[in-house]
Amino acid sequence: MAQAKGPERLGESELIKRYFAPLCHPDMSFGLSDDAAFLDLPDDMRLVMTKDMLVADVHFFANDAPDLIARKALRVNLSDLASKGAEPLGYLLGLGLPLDWTEDWLARFCDGLGSDQQAFSFPLIGGDTVKSPERLTLSVTAFGQVPRDKVILRRNAAPGDQIYVTGTIGDSALGLLLRREADRYGALDAEDRHLLLDRFLLPQPRMKYRSLLRRFATAAMDISDGLLGDAAKMSAAAGVALHFNDAAIPLSRAAQNMLSLCGISRDVALTGGDDYELMFCASEQSHDAIMASAAELELDITRVGHVTEGEGVFLLDQTGKELALTNGGSYEHF
Amino acid sequence: MAQAKGPERLGESELIKRYFAPLCHPDMSFGLSDDAAFLDLPDDMRLVMTKDMLVADVHFFANDAPDLIARKALRVNLSDLASKGAEPLGYLLGLGLPLDWTEDWLARFCDGLGSDQQAFSFPLIGGDTVKSPERLTLSVTAFGQVPRDKVILRRNAAPGDQIYVTGTIGDSALGLLLRREADRYGALDAEDRHLLLDRFLLPQPRMKYRSLLRRFATAAMDISDGLLGDAAKMSAAAGVALHFNDAAIPLSRAAQNMLSLCGISRDVALTGGDDYELMFCASEQSHDAIMASAAELELDITRVGHVTEGEGVFLLDQTGKELALTNGGSYEHF
Repeated sequence: MAQAKGPERLGESELIKRYFAPLCHPDMSFGLSDDAAFLDLPDDMRLVMTKDMLVADVHFFANDAPDLIARKALRVNLSDLASKGAEPLGYLLGLGLPLDWTEDWLARFCDGLGSDQQAFSFPLIGGDTVKSPERLTLSVTAFGQVPRDKVILRRNAAPGDQIYVTGTIGDSALGLLLRREADRYGALDAEDRHLLLDRFLLPQPRMKYRSLLRRFATAAMDISDGLLGDAAKMSAAAGVALHFNDAAIPLSRAAQNMLSLCGISRDVALTGGDDYELMFCASEQSHDAIMASAAELELDITRVGHVTEGEGVFLLDQTGKELALTNGGSYEHF
Repeated sequence: MAQAKGPERLGESELIKRYFAPLCHPDMSFGLSDDAAFLDLPDDMRLVMTKDMLVADVHFFANDAPDLIARKALRVNLSDLASKGAEPLGYLLGLGLPLDWTEDWLARFCDGLGSDQQAFSFPLIGGDTVKSPERLTLSVTAFGQVPRDKVILRRNAAPGDQIYVTGTIGDSALGLLLRREADRYGALDAEDRHLLLDRFLLPQPRMKYRSLLRRFATAAMDISDGLLGDAAKMSAAAGVALHFNDAAIPLSRAAQNMLSLCGISRDVALTGGDDYELMFCASEQSHDAIMASAAELELDITRVGHVTEGEGVFLLDQTGKELALTNGGSYEHF
């Protein structure tokens, strides 16, 4: 469907040639000279695919730094691959550009792509560029590979399994509050503020945990919609109940400071989105080996709960009594 | 990033369970219970991937029938697969829903997906659902497979090759005119009108031409941005010149009627988008075998030009003289 043109600027072919062709993988995408990309998979590997769409002012702020928007779009997809123990192979980029895009903006966006492509060995292999008049809209399809016998799904969580998380929970949800209304949280010092904001703006996909997941995890997913909300998804997929020990859930020092100094409910950390930590389950017999392996590899892993028969997600105090959430336990952000 | 909610309606999990899980491939997507999909590829096959984004009122009209929007989104991707001679395997759907979506609309959209999934053996294997406040935005990533030794690229067009197209050219560009301003073309009869409009609303991916392409094509692409505009892309990718014999380019009877009855330049048909026919090149020695094979398989194939050294796209009259286009030969619609 032909379109009225916006202000005179680069056409699609020139835009691809100038900005995207330099980012692409030569063997899979032929300099982006074709509509299709190609991939050969080793015989013993299985392809893993994941797709995350990001919309301006829904998933990021339209005025965030362009390189950070680009890196976040790649990283949320890398995080999905990490949760499946997958080695990244490359990505397709669907780029919906708003009418007011500029070449300067696009150059900085592509710098972000380039820097993370290199950091994660994750080349561009194809895509599509369209007009998205009101809002920048990104659709990244990421590809990775796992050995054929290592398919780690949410739905394989089993009664008796222990539940683990990587890193700390809730930093990004608090970073989002700071991004929205910095002035409101003046009690927090600059270092804590910077740490939490950075966790929101630039997720750290937990790639280095993949070998441990491949070795021990019965089930895994990344935490992108809040710990307890994502736990509800795993519970539904596996048909089991997930019980979390509230006191065991690891919060960073910065998060603890912000909760106490600014009078914010701990629920915000447990139900807020965008952590991009990993949650996984493993059999109880693996526990000592997991902790030994984590220590050896300098991985930050905490046991936070366990799986039983039943359904739903339960947050327990130290006596095993169920805690209610002040926000009513509505974990879904759609 | 949490969002203010629109009017109370289905959450994402319930929406996936009710509408999308029934469409999904059980072995690749596990009932959409996971963020990732998995694919095993036979050892002698290569994966082909393609991605097309479609934005409301850029690529289709927001008030088109929901099932037709869905089917068009699948078909433009199937058309890309067909042009690579690829067998469809499945697709990921990125669905950006505007704030005013309704369950009735979504049910009809999913009916469209379901009917074409069955027609083309093309199951849903995963995706992502997000808010896209102003406009429905679709991002389809399609997967297919080809034998490892059959990679048909644009850039392999070579001097001496003959150029072929399937079907007829320009019907969809004329259908778009009818979709925009039906009243303006009252001279056209109902049958022609219906045929041209249908070609715009519901492309026919040329899947049945795949075996012929695999056997003979040196280079191929689908025609999605107008014959001459897409030819310019092939010319640039291959570093060759493409020469078209104007009189040989096949127009349907309905298109010819609309051009003559409504006083529309033939250029509209040659440069308009959305044909979703295939253009391919083959060596001159293959010509008789191609035409014999086309007759045997009842395929509609026309030789329309030839490739030489050089660069650019040339439209020639019957004496071989270059014709100018009334629209100045600007083929790019971005």
